[in-house]
Amino acid sequence: MKILLANPNTSQAVTDRIAAVARAAASPGTTIQAVTAAVGAPYIATRAEAVIGARAVLELFAEHADGADAAVVAAFGDPGLGAARELLSIPVVGMAEAAMLTACMLGRRFAIITFSPTLGPWYQEIVDYNGLTSRCSGVHCLDEAFADVVHVAEEKSAQLAALCTRAVAAGAEVCILGGAPLAGLAFGIAQRVAVPLVDGVAAAVRQAETLAALRPRRPVAGSFRRPDAKAMTGLSAPLARLFGGTG
Amino acid sequence: MKILLANPNTSQAVTDRIAAVARAAASPGTTIQAVTAAVGAPYIATRAEAVIGARAVLELFAEHADGADAAVVAAFGDPGLGAARELLSIPVVGMAEAAMLTACMLGRRFAIITFSPTLGPWYQEIVDYNGLTSRCSGVHCLDEAFADVVHVAEEKSAQLAALCTRAVAAGAEVCILGGAPLAGLAFGIAQRVAVPLVDGVAAAVRQAETLAALRPRRPVAGSFRRPDAKAMTGLSAPLARLFGGTG
Amino acid sequence: MKILLANPNTSQAVTDRIAAVARAAASPGTTIQAVTAAVGAPYIATRAEAVIGARAVLELFAEHADGADAAVVAAFGDPGLGAARELLSIPVVGMAEAAMLTACMLGRRFAIITFSPTLGPWYQEIVDYNGLTSRCSGVHCLDEAFADVVHVAEEKSAQLAALCTRAVAAGAEVCILGGAPLAGLAFGIAQRVAVPLVDGVAAAVRQAETLAALRPRRPVAGSFRRPDAKAMTGLSAPLARLFGGTG
Amino acid sequence: MKILLANPNTSQAVTDRIAAVARAAASPGTTIQAVTAAVGAPYIATRAEAVIGARAVLELFAEHADGADAAVVAAFGDPGLGAARELLSIPVVGMAEAAMLTACMLGRRFAIITFSPTLGPWYQEIVDYNGLTSRCSGVHCLDEAFADVVHVAEEKSAQLAALCTRAVAAGAEVCILGGAPLAGLAFGIAQRVAVPLVDGVAAAVRQAETLAALRPRRPVAGSFRRPDAKAMTGLSAPLARLFGGTG
Amino acid sequence: MKILLANPNTSQAVTDRIAAVARAAASPGTTIQAVTAAVGAPYIATRAEAVIGARAVLELFAEHADGADAAVVAAFGDPGLGAARELLSIPVVGMAEAAMLTACMLGRRFAIITFSPTLGPWYQEIVDYNGLTSRCSGVHCLDEAFADVVHVAEEKSAQLAALCTRAVAAGAEVCILGGAPLAGLAFGIAQRVAVPLVDGVAAAVRQAETLAALRPRRPVAGSFRRPDAKAMTGLSAPLARLFGGTG
Amino acid sequence: MKILLANPNTSQAVTDRIAAVARAAASPGTTIQAVTAAVGAPYIATRAEAVIGARAVLELFAEHADGADAAVVAAFGDPGLGAARELLSIPVVGMAEAAMLTACMLGRRFAIITFSPTLGPWYQEIVDYNGLTSRCSGVHCLDEAFADVVHVAEEKSAQLAALCTRAVAAGAEVCILGGAPLAGLAFGIAQRVAVPLVDGVAAAVRQAETLAALRPRRPVAGSFRRPDAKAMTGLSAPLARLFGGTG
Repeated sequence: MKILLANPNTSQAVTDRIAAVARAAASPGTTIQAVTAAVGAPYIATRAEAVIGARAVLELFAEHADGADAAVVAAFGDPGLGAARELLSIPVVGMAEAAMLTACMLGRRFAIITFSPTLGPWYQEIVDYNGLTSRCSGVHCLDEAFADVVHVAEEKSAQLAALCTRAVAAGAEVCILGGAPLAGLAFGIAQRVAVPLVDGVAAAVRQAETLAALRPRRPVAGSFRRPDAKAMTGLSAPLARLFGGTG
Repeated sequence: MKILLANPNTSQAVTDRIAAVARAAASPGTTIQAVTAAVGAPYIATRAEAVIGARAVLELFAEHADGADAAVVAAFGDPGLGAARELLSIPVVGMAEAAMLTACMLGRRFAIITFSPTLGPWYQEIVDYNGLTSRCSGVHCLDEAFADVVHVAEEKSAQLAALCTRAVAAGAEVCILGGAPLAGLAFGIAQRVAVPLVDGVAAAVRQAETLAALRPRRPVAGSFRRPDAKAMTGLSAPLARLFGGTG
Repeated sequence: MKILLANPNTSQAVTDRIAAVARAAASPGTTIQAVTAAVGAPYIATRAEAVIGARAVLELFAEHADGADAAVVAAFGDPGLGAARELLSIPVVGMAEAAMLTACMLGRRFAIITFSPTLGPWYQEIVDYNGLTSRCSGVHCLDEAFADVVHVAEEKSAQLAALCTRAVAAGAEVCILGGAPLAGLAFGIAQRVAVPLVDGVAAAVRQAETLAALRPRRPVAGSFRRPDAKAMTGLSAPLARLFGGTG
Repeated sequence: MKILLANPNTSQAVTDRIAAVARAAASPGTTIQAVTAAVGAPYIATRAEAVIGARAVLELFAEHADGADAAVVAAFGDPGLGAARELLSIPVVGMAEAAMLTACMLGRRFAIITFSPTLGPWYQEIVDYNGLTSRCSGVHCLDEAFADVVHVAEEKSAQLAALCTRAVAAGAEVCILGGAPLAGLAFGIAQRVAVPLVDGVAAAVRQAETLAALRPRRPVAGSFRRPDAKAMTGLSAPLARLFGGTG
Repeated sequence: MKILLANPNTSQAVTDRIAAVARAAASPGTTIQAVTAAVGAPYIATRAEAVIGARAVLELFAEHADGADAAVVAAFGDPGLGAARELLSIPVVGMAEAAMLTACMLGRRFAIITFSPTLGPWYQEIVDYNGLTSRCSGVHCLDEAFADVVHVAEEKSAQLAALCTRAVAAGAEVCILGGAPLAGLAFGIAQRVAVPLVDGVAAAVRQAETLAALRPRRPVAGSFRRPDAKAMTGLSAPLARLFGGTG
Repeated sequence: MKILLANPNTSQAVTDRIAAVARAAASPGTTIQAVTAAVGAPYIATRAEAVIGARAVLELFAEHADGADAAVVAAFGDPGLGAARELLSIPVVGMAEAAMLTACMLGRRFAIITFSPTLGPWYQEIVDYNGLTSRCSGVHCLDEAFADVVHVAEEKSAQLAALCTRAVAAGAEVCILGGAPLAGLAFGIAQRVAVPLVDGVAAAVRQAETLAALRPRRPVAGSFRRPDAKAMTGLSAPLARLFGGTG
């Protein structure tokens, strides 16, 4: 099985980090292809950057989805997820979505832990958008300067573990480490936190495998069927093909 | 006062329609500038097209917002609204948002009436995203072929009025005519429906004026403050400037 | 355009304050008529006082609505708003309603800031009644003795600005200054708070203008159509006429 | 024990009906005093009439509550209930409130059945206001002309039983017969409907007895403590005394 | 009238405590029979123990319900309540359910106060399951070691009263003392807390009387009708009879 | 990897059916052990039967969980799931839970389709309990007599496919075939329905594998940590050991 991970951020170092965690989490025999956005922010943290990232995700899928069995939007806010689900003929999952749904099988209420207060409201929106507000005990953000987003997981691992512990005291039964730069951290600090931790990349890869294995048919009705072909203007050739129906 | 309307659709005819309704609805002394997306679908009806439209909205605002007092995202699903609210120094409203909030002052429960079943789930998402689910009695979609989206309002006015009447029987106390191509129809069929009708363009223009008149300060905290400047890659020059902080 | 503001409180000084803010906020050419309840409490702060105030509002509208283009219930809990909307042939808005709906266009989550803990539960009820619970980050009440309700805005302006700042730290993206005695304060402290502030009177006047400008038809179906004429007992002559259908 | 029932409607015939059902439902040794509003509508069916009824309820309690052990607001929309709860030193229950909470012990989802479509939106508001939306399967209204509101229960008993049966098919596990004029009907048609029926008057009387028997202390904190005495203007002598703290 | 209380815990001392409070709360002429689970935990505090307790409740009802007019599940999480409601021909109420619904008539928002943090999430689940989330201001748990669950009410009465006071400061308008071992405490500390307190046993007994007095018919439709007789395996003789339809 | 499926029903034929689907859905190298309840109903359809089934599930896990890597509660209402999650040291998933969470990655709104109206309210409760009410477009039940629950999937496949199609027309973007006797049907009728179908057994097996692969730590805090050992009375030896902490 081949799974395509599209990193909507422009940082290759984040992609490398994600790819390594994805490979470690995947089933034997699963191949991971991880690609990086050519357009946008090195690390998406706002609605404006997510708008750019959402379109970048579609470009990446348009160029690379051929031959993949499932695809992952590899940024925690899931930019472009619904759009990709309409356009692609393979299953698509988002990192936040996969992490939250997986967490729901490990406890009644999950917390999301992340490394910057900027991300808080955006992550709360993704919780609400998924209809999981009642399952979320809170979004907890570290509020400390850090040297480099690519290595923030290692730099702040102790503080992030402590933040998980505070989330548990506030009612969390599971903690999700949110944000692509924290990929892998859940495994590193698992024994320092009293409840299960969920890694977004690992959850997304396993859920992508699950969907591919279940072979759901592609919808031909409802709001996730392929959009009707239209006269789209100004798209790149691959994206135009994807909208045109050969994706 | 000058209000900028950005049509995320590529159809100039729809822009012309919107602009005419906007001018009729605006206060004396208000100038309307209506601009059209250069990239995307002639008429946005899916999440995938909205992803393209959201970025197109930012491009339009990047090019044209100078000198405007307020801005309007002139498509009913409000693509790019939150992003624009972060980036622009002037108030921004969305057509769906303005229509729904205005409707809330005319009754307890509003219905949204539109001309194609494709739009139903997308409009329901925008209701839910705005936290107004409990105020919405339903999204009602005409399910008939039509000749041309630009003139669907005239072609189907009788059927759309009848659909409003069915919505009233199902509990609506106000009806919103949703979708830019229906701009102006609310005024045309007002006497054929037993409850108040809301026109999205007229509501958006008036709400944009209201926000501009109230002179709210631009936030420097919270999730709608301007995003920190980052090394953005691959944007057009105007969009790069907008992200860079001169918007 | 003429807008009628009915103050359900018996305090003429509060009415004068509201009227001044209303005139400053209104469009050129709009006339403000502000009237004061003859019956009830100098300042409504409980459900019991609101019951008296709701009827007082109807009396005021019965006497003064002739010739007005729109009407405002000028107390933050909106006593009598739904009833007035049934009875009057012109649009009616409430101060709390208008402030909250306006705030929804400036951020995802608004806080309500007020000057007495007594008002907290009542304001929370009005948030819930409007179906806006998910849009409200909290109702924050100053808990300090004050000399005089009419001048509490000036006496406590620093403390109220500080309370806004605490609300922002707790997630508010917009702050509403709630309670008629705080009318005007939002403009005075705007630069001391990091997010936009909403003044209830200014919002209500502008929204009343908006509704009047949109010329919604009066409903003849649904729960806001005029109540059927009945044999009402014991009403004042103007109120009897209003119930009788000449309002 | 003595229970005071205040009928916010001006119809003595409705009061007589309520009183008879209340006496049949009360425990041995309980005395029922039923009083009728002097001001307002013969039968409250709108928000505007409820505003008048809410104040009328307070007048009735001001005049008659001395010596009572508990009080009932005997109209289905519970006008003035929260206000009375603040002002009186004895427990107060509303007919709708008591019926709904009682129904919650007989099934997961209750329906409300009533005799006129006018009452539907108002009853839905009372469901929502009580936070019981998720427990209510629907509000079902007969839509037929009737000769006389006082005898509508007998005139339409077959149709109302049939409407209950339709509500059961739509998911109701309990049916509430809503509206004071239907008092007693639940007992008459119990064997014609496949699920338990709840009579609002009987439920309210029993719940009033329950609260009185539990002897809850009167709150001196929170939003239901007695309002601070204020300089109230224009009230009747009994109402002024009630607001003044001798209620 | 005879009311059967089934204690799903195996502690006879807790049953004795419950029975004494029940007798004090019951109407004159009501007989209380209190029975104790033969199987399970001395004090249920987890979902696993509740599974055992739920079946134990059905065993108790199977053996003892003959001749009772109503039944009470006398543990705060209401284990087995829905099942008993299906199987028994008499009304059944749960202690948590009765306490919460009674509290709803004494204030808008109730808190639940209990003696161990273990109980918090389970009690929150029962609030949510009853659809009363919006009526609950919080579940507050004492977090101190105690000598003996049977006498924790007396040992920690001062601390529990203080916890109630903190709940009031956090918005509670009524406090429920949750957990069978706290039976009776509400009466003992009533004057130390500024809002009404609700005792679960007293509320349940009175509500059981209320339901019995109202004589609701047994449903023959909907999800609380008696389950169809099936070939049940491995049940005790009384339980088999109860499932077989002689309950 | 070894996965244990506990069928809370006493029907061996249903267990065989589940086991076959589970084996077909599992990854290469996964072993399935399927066990059948010794006590209870042949097919659980009510709350009362679920109480018996929940305890039977714990008995099955107590006897058979040794050596398993994950466990599945193999009945659609997930009886005993939370309890098992507390007691077992391996991950546990429920069939309904797994199906619903999987469906959330295939569309915004799922429907549940089942073969008997009796199951409707119970399935709706499980949707609500999981906090997924807003993601569910409806629970749709066939209402036709069938010959034998074990073969109802084959007997009614055409009718169930037609019911899926009706659910799609009513807004479902994914359909879950609910109820263990329908195991496997989703694969058989996939091409007859226009949206993806989810099979509960297949989803549960894959989700159990996913959880096992992610190696979440066992919680030692929060409500899913192992219950403290207590003096449990009247349990079977294996169940006593499981409660005693050797599970």
